[in-house]
Amino acid sequence: MSAQRYKCIVQYDGTNYVGYQVQPNGNSVQAEIEKALKKMCKGEYIPIQASGRTDSGVHALGQVIHFDYPVAIKADHLMRAMNSLLPADIMITEIEQTTEDFHCRYHAVGKKYIYRVDLNRFPDPFKRQYTLHHPFRFSMENLQKAIKHLEGEHDFTSFCSTKTDKTDLVRTVYEASVIKDEAANELVFTFRGNGFLYNMIRIFVGTLLQIADGLKPVGEIERLLAAKDRRKAGPTAAPEGLYLAKVYYDEEKLKRGE
Amino acid sequence: MSAQRYKCIVQYDGTNYVGYQVQPNGNSVQAEIEKALKKMCKGEYIPIQASGRTDSGVHALGQVIHFDYPVAIKADHLMRAMNSLLPADIMITEIEQTTEDFHCRYHAVGKKYIYRVDLNRFPDPFKRQYTLHHPFRFSMENLQKAIKHLEGEHDFTSFCSTKTDKTDLVRTVYEASVIKDEAANELVFTFRGNGFLYNMIRIFVGTLLQIADGLKPVGEIERLLAAKDRRKAGPTAAPEGLYLAKVYYDEEKLKRGE
Repeated sequence: MSAQRYKCIVQYDGTNYVGYQVQPNGNSVQAEIEKALKKMCKGEYIPIQASGRTDSGVHALGQVIHFDYPVAIKADHLMRAMNSLLPADIMITEIEQTTEDFHCRYHAVGKKYIYRVDLNRFPDPFKRQYTLHHPFRFSMENLQKAIKHLEGEHDFTSFCSTKTDKTDLVRTVYEASVIKDEAANELVFTFRGNGFLYNMIRIFVGTLLQIADGLKPVGEIERLLAAKDRRKAGPTAAPEGLYLAKVYYDEEKLKRGE
Repeated sequence: MSAQRYKCIVQYDGTNYVGYQVQPNGNSVQAEIEKALKKMCKGEYIPIQASGRTDSGVHALGQVIHFDYPVAIKADHLMRAMNSLLPADIMITEIEQTTEDFHCRYHAVGKKYIYRVDLNRFPDPFKRQYTLHHPFRFSMENLQKAIKHLEGEHDFTSFCSTKTDKTDLVRTVYEASVIKDEAANELVFTFRGNGFLYNMIRIFVGTLLQIADGLKPVGEIERLLAAKDRRKAGPTAAPEGLYLAKVYYDEEKLKRGE
């Protein structure tokens, strides 16, 4: 009996979880997936690996996990079995059998995140768990100017939670953009890069909204990149607007945003 | 101190409620709104009226309510105060002061409902409470042909829950239509008429999907309208796909769908 490695793309609504990773104090996405696999394997524990954690309330459209399944099974049958056992707020959307040396975290070369902001005067009841509510008047022009300064290779110390255990805080952002979705009355931010630090996207958004609102000047991003001081940046925006959209395993596709 | 009558448009996510109307066995939308008004009026009970009930799990984009507020207050201030006290899944979106003879139920001349169907192979985690999941292959052509037979003045006995207390089951449907939203991978049904019977939209959708799936012939709707027998129609589709979209108070606007 030889184990087979499977790679899955996972979507989840993070609202009811303490985050992706198993925690002592509540349900995690990881625990739910491991529970489903355990049922399928008659109680055998199948550990899963993920491309990275997501915080409590943060969602995923394209989280990637891998695990070794003890018996050979068609990938599509495995996905169907998992989805029938998983709670309705977690879904495997794609699956493939992969080589035993593939690792979804170590081999990831970058990620894409989306952040959604509800611009309605009062928070939309259907979006309360899926957007940040920000009903203030703002300058789209200043926002567009400021966000471009995040692109490129920078030391992002000012945009990283001080709780990080990392020392090298230089990352490359290939795309930092924002559009206004008029039909939905939302701002939709996209950030694509070779790595993101703890809370980085949420501090980006918290700071960019201060600039958009006129509380901070358009040059603030450049100043913060030079300052290398978390205390000087804006607040960490709420988790419920954030989505892990895609994990990249091919450098060229990461750069081109494919 | 003379009371003022206010008319409000209300949106709600029906997921966590037993329905619109106060019930002995759980939270209702009505109870939440009355609770908010009670807080604003130092414990005085302000009864509210609605255009009609919605069932447990059913949502509203445009429910209409009215109530008499004991003191004169600017409508916009009243709305702001209510929204600050209401739970996040209920929101007043519009408010106006109205005449004391206005009644949101008795004066309603018609309604519009939307029904959303998630066509993805596995149920989308973000739509699990907002759509019916229907992953089967179906004929859009047959669906389009069949749905048009619902338009017009008919006795809708076959499409009414036997639990109804009504005897006149003749209603006029001005619009029965369906589109495929390719980006969302959803079917979106729209029904507009001068009145809808108990579970009528949900039985429409349950029956129409049977026709689309090829389980029933395209002529089924005509047959059911003639049969006047609930037992012959399809199942009652799940509540979570249904939205009360609009209540009409002007016959011409109802007919034109404005």
